[in-house]
Amino acid sequence: MTDKLPGITSPKGFEAAGVHCGIKADPKKPDLTLIVCETAASAAAVFTQNKMCAAPVIVSRTHLKESGGKMFAVVANSGNANAATGNQGFVDALTMAEEAAEEIGAEQNQVLVCSTGMIGIPMPMDKLRAGIEAAGAALSAGPEADLAAARGIMTTDAAPKMFGVRGEVGGKEVTVAGICKGAGMIAPNMATMLCFITTDAAVSPKRLQACLAEAVDKSFNTIRVDGHTSTNDTVLCLASGLAGNDEIKKKDDPGLEAFQELLDRVTLELALKIVRDGEGADKLCEISVEGAESDKEARAIAVSLADSPLWKCALTAGHPNWGRIVCAVGNVVSEGGPDDLTVRLGGHKVFAKGKPVEVAKGALATAMKEDPIRVHIKLNHGDGTALIRTCDINHKYITENTGAST
Amino acid sequence: MTDKLPGITSPKGFEAAGVHCGIKADPKKPDLTLIVCETAASAAAVFTQNKMCAAPVIVSRTHLKESGGKMFAVVANSGNANAATGNQGFVDALTMAEEAAEEIGAEQNQVLVCSTGMIGIPMPMDKLRAGIEAAGAALSAGPEADLAAARGIMTTDAAPKMFGVRGEVGGKEVTVAGICKGAGMIAPNMATMLCFITTDAAVSPKRLQACLAEAVDKSFNTIRVDGHTSTNDTVLCLASGLAGNDEIKKKDDPGLEAFQELLDRVTLELALKIVRDGEGADKLCEISVEGAESDKEARAIAVSLADSPLWKCALTAGHPNWGRIVCAVGNVVSEGGPDDLTVRLGGHKVFAKGKPVEVAKGALATAMKEDPIRVHIKLNHGDGTALIRTCDINHKYITENTGAST
Repeated sequence: MTDKLPGITSPKGFEAAGVHCGIKADPKKPDLTLIVCETAASAAAVFTQNKMCAAPVIVSRTHLKESGGKMFAVVANSGNANAATGNQGFVDALTMAEEAAEEIGAEQNQVLVCSTGMIGIPMPMDKLRAGIEAAGAALSAGPEADLAAARGIMTTDAAPKMFGVRGEVGGKEVTVAGICKGAGMIAPNMATMLCFITTDAAVSPKRLQACLAEAVDKSFNTIRVDGHTSTNDTVLCLASGLAGNDEIKKKDDPGLEAFQELLDRVTLELALKIVRDGEGADKLCEISVEGAESDKEARAIAVSLADSPLWKCALTAGHPNWGRIVCAVGNVVSEGGPDDLTVRLGGHKVFAKGKPVEVAKGALATAMKEDPIRVHIKLNHGDGTALIRTCDINHKYITENTGAST
Repeated sequence: MTDKLPGITSPKGFEAAGVHCGIKADPKKPDLTLIVCETAASAAAVFTQNKMCAAPVIVSRTHLKESGGKMFAVVANSGNANAATGNQGFVDALTMAEEAAEEIGAEQNQVLVCSTGMIGIPMPMDKLRAGIEAAGAALSAGPEADLAAARGIMTTDAAPKMFGVRGEVGGKEVTVAGICKGAGMIAPNMATMLCFITTDAAVSPKRLQACLAEAVDKSFNTIRVDGHTSTNDTVLCLASGLAGNDEIKKKDDPGLEAFQELLDRVTLELALKIVRDGEGADKLCEISVEGAESDKEARAIAVSLADSPLWKCALTAGHPNWGRIVCAVGNVVSEGGPDDLTVRLGGHKVFAKGKPVEVAKGALATAMKEDPIRVHIKLNHGDGTALIRTCDINHKYITENTGAST
């Protein structure tokens, strides 16, 4: 036990490396990450729903199926998404898996592959081959490896994103740790998000998949990454089983609840790191909806506001411009009118029964300085609820996305 | 006949005024517009579909129904949307109609009312009353009145928006002219759009409604104003009938086609003025889609790209980043993958059969400088088509929408 948060190589059985192979121009920036498990780890994954998904997504999905959910490694590069690259893209993704498998003595289809970066550019395979070899040689466990692995998948991220927790599962100490990358949450549909989680808990592949799906739903899906996903979005989890707990297989197995809680904490913290790192973003806003016709409608309402550039500008400016909230709701709500809507900002009722509600002077200015800024939208035609997290848009976003490098 | 484009008071029977009544701080900026017809004009209207629609929208819709589509005037103010203002908002909208009716000697329900500006602020009725009286006294026909009326409805618009045409309808010279306001097209769902059209063509109210609906579908609806509309969006048309043509009543009436064409030209030109005036926008982009499952899917695909902040940044920067196009399509397309998609930029095929297509050097940089910038998206699973126009997003947009005045 240590004061430092557990890193991706903290769970028993894992090593990692992050090296520079030359996709990124700056030699100080790693652009290739390799994470390896010494045993065949239970593996689970949630992939993008984008129909134009990239070759590595299809390769990883296939490998996971072929290997019955037991995998040895993840190899990932940043700087090139290997998306919209035609048949050559598939060959290249398969080659990445093959090279990594050779490095660690596994089968090609026991390796997961991820890429993130520019779309439509052929993969510089010579660089990648050399990089994978270098990463294989550099594999180790410890804080340096954790950081290098996190840096190796960064694109526009302001800083490496890492988080980990320890807890007791089935009477044994279990570690769950993860790294992720992703920003640009102003348009989450465009921001490739990668997340790799390691754990030493013993969990069957099938149960791990269910746990991961649930964890993603409560975390990455609340920051608008599902439904509208990029070509490459992927969340992976590898479980070595070396913690020594009885393998969690069924819904009522002892330890399941404790493991889910640890996994949830890791995915939520990493998801929040992404939304807080929206390209240039300074503000986090939590939008909760209740009383909608269905969860689906509630989500559509929250998303309508979360995606509104005008509301994102209000977040930047700190303006409690709740009129923009009322308008965003009106765009998507299925029934009812202003009389059926209550809007709260930072806990203060600002709009109810079709008209503004008087709020103590200064209260809303304070509400717009909270972290997160809280918007609550209440309707009265059903039980549907939703929670969505978004960030502001400001000059830094424009600068970043109109710059020569994007 | 004159070299100058016909203005809103050019069609026979119309007078207008635009005055400053004190809603806007700057006394040089008119904030109240009155347009009056000397006869009971045939009237048609297309209103916002926003469920939180403002009081004046409901009042105008009701008046139109009560008066059998025969109206004498439109009264409109800028600076305050009279939206989310509860029962008092309705009283105020009715009062505006009543005051205008008194000025011109008509019934209250023969006047249409529109408001645009901030949401949730009570209407300063003393100012409005005085303003309507002043506007009644200032009514006149001619370029000055045309301009004052156009300025009286401006909010964040960079310049007044006016357009008009003359043509022959049923053997008589007919004039169709309009004014409109609206910008902020980066988030058209938030940008209140008002458009008032006058004509001296003789058209029955029912036929005029059909003509206006068709014209709006081909113009304002292609700039993302329908479906996602603000609380106050309104397009109105008044037809005095004084041109002397036989009244157009039925689908096959002579003159209908010619009238529709004139109306289409006015609405399209005004719609383009709005999208070109997206808050701070410099670039116009036309997105066409073919081969989708349905027109609905085609539209969803076009909108997915049109609303993408990353694509809007690419427009600003002039980067032919077609990967962002592929990704936006993948987010919403119902079936097929990269192999089924062809993307053209300014006529150049850039992506087909799952991979990039080589384009002559410099061709894409030129394509990104065209006006409009043209994106063509071709799928192969149906006959659905769509055309959507959008604009870029840049620093001026952020400055405008995070400023103290919004």
